[in-house]
Amino acid sequence: MKKHNFSAGPAILPAPVLKEAGKAAANYQGMGLSLLELSHRGPEFTAIIEEANALMKEIMGLPDDYHVLWLSGGASTQFFMAPMNLLNSDETAAYVDSGTWANKAIKEAKSFGNVTVLASSKEQNYTFIPKGYKIPKDVKYLHLTSNNTIFGTQMHKFPKSPVPLVCDMSSDFLSRPVDPKPFGLIYAGAQKNLGPAGTTVVIVREDMLGTVQRHLPSMVDYRTFVKENSLYNTPPVFPIYVSLLTLRWIKKNGGLKGMQRRNKTKAAILYQEIDRNPLFKGTTAVEDRSLMNVCFVMEEKYAALEKEFLKETEAHGMVGLKGHRSVGGFRASIYNAMPKSSVQALVDLMADFAKRKG
Amino acid sequence: MKKHNFSAGPAILPAPVLKEAGKAAANYQGMGLSLLELSHRGPEFTAIIEEANALMKEIMGLPDDYHVLWLSGGASTQFFMAPMNLLNSDETAAYVDSGTWANKAIKEAKSFGNVTVLASSKEQNYTFIPKGYKIPKDVKYLHLTSNNTIFGTQMHKFPKSPVPLVCDMSSDFLSRPVDPKPFGLIYAGAQKNLGPAGTTVVIVREDMLGTVQRHLPSMVDYRTFVKENSLYNTPPVFPIYVSLLTLRWIKKNGGLKGMQRRNKTKAAILYQEIDRNPLFKGTTAVEDRSLMNVCFVMEEKYAALEKEFLKETEAHGMVGLKGHRSVGGFRASIYNAMPKSSVQALVDLMADFAKRKG
Repeated sequence: MKKHNFSAGPAILPAPVLKEAGKAAANYQGMGLSLLELSHRGPEFTAIIEEANALMKEIMGLPDDYHVLWLSGGASTQFFMAPMNLLNSDETAAYVDSGTWANKAIKEAKSFGNVTVLASSKEQNYTFIPKGYKIPKDVKYLHLTSNNTIFGTQMHKFPKSPVPLVCDMSSDFLSRPVDPKPFGLIYAGAQKNLGPAGTTVVIVREDMLGTVQRHLPSMVDYRTFVKENSLYNTPPVFPIYVSLLTLRWIKKNGGLKGMQRRNKTKAAILYQEIDRNPLFKGTTAVEDRSLMNVCFVMEEKYAALEKEFLKETEAHGMVGLKGHRSVGGFRASIYNAMPKSSVQALVDLMADFAKRKG
Repeated sequence: MKKHNFSAGPAILPAPVLKEAGKAAANYQGMGLSLLELSHRGPEFTAIIEEANALMKEIMGLPDDYHVLWLSGGASTQFFMAPMNLLNSDETAAYVDSGTWANKAIKEAKSFGNVTVLASSKEQNYTFIPKGYKIPKDVKYLHLTSNNTIFGTQMHKFPKSPVPLVCDMSSDFLSRPVDPKPFGLIYAGAQKNLGPAGTTVVIVREDMLGTVQRHLPSMVDYRTFVKENSLYNTPPVFPIYVSLLTLRWIKKNGGLKGMQRRNKTKAAILYQEIDRNPLFKGTTAVEDRSLMNVCFVMEEKYAALEKEFLKETEAHGMVGLKGHRSVGGFRASIYNAMPKSSVQALVDLMADFAKRKG
């Protein structure tokens, strides 16, 4: 049976990417060797990382003073690396607390300098994106989380800022066009829209580097990766290759504008059903609804049907729809690679379920 | 044509492992989903990491107070994480400088505490393993590098130490039985004997943890990985899975005793030819010759033939034989997965080449 993969991450990847990835792991380009056993200093991987860097710059429209780096350790590693590389102990960074991951980023940053939290939606269980805060001119940077995977909220507009933005874009990276110029640093774990778990992309503007006094171990100093083109030591070869395959797929499918169009269409279909269907309701402020992670619950009077509905989704080959324990209910992650037909299958089941049980 | 993969790393993996890895990347266990798109919190990956931990403990014979952790960032990340987690700024750690990587480990450690280098073979271009040094009783740990990939030397015996050993085993991990009890910490990048690039195994004894005063960011604190069973955040799923496949292969092929037998046989065939053949000579002290990375050069009077021989190896489907620039000549990496037949093919070519050119 065809599976519909609604997992929050690691998440669905384009079908042709997975097919190609499987071939490369068994026998890379028919050369009689697996990509898993090829030297990262050889011509094959050199070509891979150079194409990946060039495609990332092209697709994102990055100006020349931005570096594309391939690290590992996930966004959680960036929670400490960003302040460690950017913030002196007597300087202040501003953070917006829009979800669990933003909150973790704040905690890690506090060990490296002063942190001012400009706004938080924590008291309302992160059901909306904080807005209307004033950004001080004397902070080193403003840290944002563009999409909150757990709570299903997304920043549809970035604030005009007098200081560079530092942004965790893990869960909506490459899902829409974003003007890179206000951003001094963007980071994203690959395992949503880009590739498998195991690599983390860091995009950093040249002027952000070299302004802190503290000692930085080589492997947590962004400049090491800039200087060595992400090849100071052995990088996560296979995750980077699969990311390249996805970048090619994005380009072929209309780039970030194409992704945005697909994502808007899919999200509209699902949110429309959530709003129409008497059994279900959304959990977030309507204007902050994420196009990536769609969170919804049963209306209170139907709460007892939650498990039954989840069972039916599984029987229909839908996986990963159980909501995060912080929200409950359901979460449909509908990243770039999710086909409209899978969203339609979910919507059809929701409508049918309501007819039978409502 | 069948390829003989002599790469130093990422390196050859067992053929059945690569086949299975390719299948998993395309469609994991016939479930209609790729392993690359499965949640790390789902039952499939939970089973993978639990089996990998159990198999690692079984194969290595680890006592109960040792933790098996799956990190990323390579051994280069452990160069700073080990002292950061183990060494207070007023304490001293002892290091043995046996090669390029040991040297980098020393440099990183110096930022966290006092470092005393007990012995070094640097002046002799790391052609031997330093021995006979006295280990002070008042150092926190002694750091060793069990095998030097670049120079082709290996510690065939570990010194009796009054303090815990901390060891970079990247390039001979799981290649022979090792009594774990003298070791407080063992680390190894996967991409030699274990799996593809992208995960790093850390084996740490419980009593080594929690003795430093400095602040540790969550992602560089070993205790985070112990507490969360390597699942504090999304781990490198696919590299860990391929490592599990290799662990199963090791168990099936006689465990570490079986690996040692294979490795001794292969290395003996190659070193015997190097010593017999008038065109070639080894580059290291005979007693410290590595069973993993066999370094050799042309005798001076035949030096002009180096490029020609390298070309012939390539024409015979042998890849990765060019020596590291620090040594020159040739390096045959013959890790666990390298079949005897590939070593024999190289030896046959060396003998034939000598007949024609000698």
